[in-house]
Amino acid sequence: MQRYKCVVSYDGTGFAGYQVQPGKRTVQGEIEAVLAKIHKGEAVKVTASGRTDSGVHAKGQVIHFDSPLSIPPERWPAALNSMLGGEIVILLAERVKPDFHARFDAIGKEYRYVLYLGKNKNPFNRNYAYHYPYPLNLAKMEEAARHLTGRYDFSSFCASNTEVADKVRTITDISLKKEDECLVLGFKGNGFLYNMVRILTGTLIEVGSGAREAAAIPSLIAARDRTLAGKTAPAHGLYLWEVFYEDWVQKSKTTKPGV
Amino acid sequence: MQRYKCVVSYDGTGFAGYQVQPGKRTVQGEIEAVLAKIHKGEAVKVTASGRTDSGVHAKGQVIHFDSPLSIPPERWPAALNSMLGGEIVILLAERVKPDFHARFDAIGKEYRYVLYLGKNKNPFNRNYAYHYPYPLNLAKMEEAARHLTGRYDFSSFCASNTEVADKVRTITDISLKKEDECLVLGFKGNGFLYNMVRILTGTLIEVGSGAREAAAIPSLIAARDRTLAGKTAPAHGLYLWEVFYEDWVQKSKTTKPGV
Repeated sequence: MQRYKCVVSYDGTGFAGYQVQPGKRTVQGEIEAVLAKIHKGEAVKVTASGRTDSGVHAKGQVIHFDSPLSIPPERWPAALNSMLGGEIVILLAERVKPDFHARFDAIGKEYRYVLYLGKNKNPFNRNYAYHYPYPLNLAKMEEAARHLTGRYDFSSFCASNTEVADKVRTITDISLKKEDECLVLGFKGNGFLYNMVRILTGTLIEVGSGAREAAAIPSLIAARDRTLAGKTAPAHGLYLWEVFYEDWVQKSKTTKPGV
Repeated sequence: MQRYKCVVSYDGTGFAGYQVQPGKRTVQGEIEAVLAKIHKGEAVKVTASGRTDSGVHAKGQVIHFDSPLSIPPERWPAALNSMLGGEIVILLAERVKPDFHARFDAIGKEYRYVLYLGKNKNPFNRNYAYHYPYPLNLAKMEEAARHLTGRYDFSSFCASNTEVADKVRTITDISLKKEDECLVLGFKGNGFLYNMVRILTGTLIEVGSGAREAAAIPSLIAARDRTLAGKTAPAHGLYLWEVFYEDWVQKSKTTKPGV
């Protein structure tokens, strides 16, 4: 038995989210169905770094699975992709130690949220960006982003039905970048609560529109009350961009010794 | 009765082409259905600059229709877009003379063809670019493009079942532009035959891959034989980008007197 780690990109539009649900088309369900075919009907369980909701996309989701087949790692992507159609793409596969775990070993994640600021609707990004054709004050959004960066109890930015007890997380970086007619918000941190990035985005939009003061963010965090934060931004603007593991950090350290 | 000209963008993925066909979902069919609703069930005929095939997109298709309603032109886009969903977007509407005709008055068109050159499949452009992950010699493609620019009988680059008698057309410009991991081919001309841009693209790809010589293009044009040209490139990489009318030329002349 050999354990494989894969980096997976998917268009979340046509799926009821990542996680298997009876009677629904899910990303995990599609990948497991293809793996079962390759294993002559034998079920292969796939474990991801975390779920993504219906409509949410991934540029670099990470999964792991075990297989007794002696397929070289570099051959797995083509083998899986030829059966997956184009909505889910395996970008990379590598052999990992038998105790590697896509979820428990993840030490951080990056999410990105794409706002399309163009005046007109655009049929080509309607499922890939949230159309927000109103003025935004980026300087105020950046001020709010600085207040949100750090180690805090993010209860105000978490869906109220979340069962996790410990809502303390560390956001290491929030970036705002204009790309053509889009504004891309990048969120890096050691972990994110349920709906956290979408609530952070909704709150930053309200700061940018003038509906909320950047200076009021610290008291909003302190209140630990979901009802005081902004709206949950729509799923289709959100991307799980990258998942970080210890080996990744070591690699970056060795390749960039000055950093 | 007032005639309106509209610029329309659409994602061709979910449509059986532009033109109405019984029992099929088409761009024209959707727009006419929405116009009928606005006109209390009265049929409104929509005329376009030309058809696009199934899977082909439009950034700037042009249509015209007549309406007895006294809606200001600037209000038409919002009225139609709210009922069209996001796949078809009316970008602009303006009142035109009663004899304006979207097809007969068009003096030229621009098409673009998008090749995605990335090594991996990309789930986000699978319906919007043709994935071609092999090397292309752009200098040779540009040489071939120069041979194809001009006034010629383009029978070699036209689907063989086309009924049009006169296959002489003028291509005024073919451009190649790298944009991130894509190569965008732009074709401007006074008119294009059925499948012409897709056959030109397929032929240019064969020149770029080394399967065909750029210097052999003049004899390929002279042969007037479809079987000698390249493969028809897939529909989903093609965009009707812009349609040109006389007033557009006059406007450009007045705003750019030096050109």
